[in-house]
Amino acid sequence: MQAVINLQYLDMEKIEHIGIAVNSIADAGSIYEKLLNTSVYKTEDVTSESVRTAFLQCGPNKIELLEALNDDSPIAKFIAKRGEGIHHIAFEVKDIRAEMARLKGDGFILLNEEPKQGADNKLVCFLHPKGTNGVLVELCQNQEGN
Amino acid sequence: MQAVINLQYLDMEKIEHIGIAVNSIADAGSIYEKLLNTSVYKTEDVTSESVRTAFLQCGPNKIELLEALNDDSPIAKFIAKRGEGIHHIAFEVKDIRAEMARLKGDGFILLNEEPKQGADNKLVCFLHPKGTNGVLVELCQNQEGN
Repeated sequence: MQAVINLQYLDMEKIEHIGIAVNSIADAGSIYEKLLNTSVYKTEDVTSESVRTAFLQCGPNKIELLEALNDDSPIAKFIAKRGEGIHHIAFEVKDIRAEMARLKGDGFILLNEEPKQGADNKLVCFLHPKGTNGVLVELCQNQEGN
Repeated sequence: MQAVINLQYLDMEKIEHIGIAVNSIADAGSIYEKLLNTSVYKTEDVTSESVRTAFLQCGPNKIELLEALNDDSPIAKFIAKRGEGIHHIAFEVKDIRAEMARLKGDGFILLNEEPKQGADNKLVCFLHPKGTNGVLVELCQNQEGN
C-alpha cells in the first residue's frame, strides 16, 4: 500500500480585505483614514456590481468601503435592511478554481459557478451566507499585473 | 521655526481577527475548519463577557468564533437581533493606551476607558459602532508571554 498525498496547493492565504457597506465613501473614508491612521489609496467603481469602492491598507490586510451607485445595488439593499456595517470577508486564495471546487465538494454554496471580475484586479467568487453562519464570504485571487 | 515631529509609534498593525457570532461553536467550528482548511487550535471561555471562543488561523489573521455562555451575553443579544454573523473587527496595536488616546482625541467613542482583559491573552478596547459606520471595532494588544 502506498499513501497518496495531494501536493496541490489549496489554501486560504489571509484575510485579503473586509468589505464595509457605507452610505458615503466621502464621509466614511475620512473616518477610516483617522481610524487606521492612513489614507485611502484607491477608489474604483465596479459598475457590474453597482458599487463604488475605496481601499485603505492595514498591514497585510485591506479595508474596502462600499457605496451603492444606485438603488438596485446589493449595497443599497444591504443598508436598507441592516444599516451600515460589515458586508463581507474576503480571503485571498492562490487558485480560485481549485478552492471553488474544494469548497463546493465540502457542501458550501457558490453564488457564482465561474470566477468573476471584482474590484482591485481580482477574480472573485462569493459563498452563500447560509452555509457560513450568516457570513458573506468572498474568495479572491490576484490577476497578472496586480 | 522648527517642525516638531512626533516619532512615537502609533499604528494599526493588521486585522488581528474577525469575531463571528455563532449559535454553536461545535457546529460552526467544523464549518470554518472546512472553509479555511485548518483546525480550531484553541478554545477559551471569557466568563467576564459570557462568551466561549474558538480560534482558527488564516495566514497572519485569525477567525474568532463566539458562542454565548448565557442569555445575558452580548453574543446572545446580537444573535437574537440580527442572527449569526460578523460581530466585530479587531485590529492589532502595539500600544493600546496610545491608540485609545489618539482615537478619543479624533472623536471616536471608547466603550471602555481602560484596557480590559480579553480572550487570547490580549488587552482590548472597543469603539462604539455609531462612530465607525456601524462596525464594532476592537483594538487589541498582545501581553507578555503571548
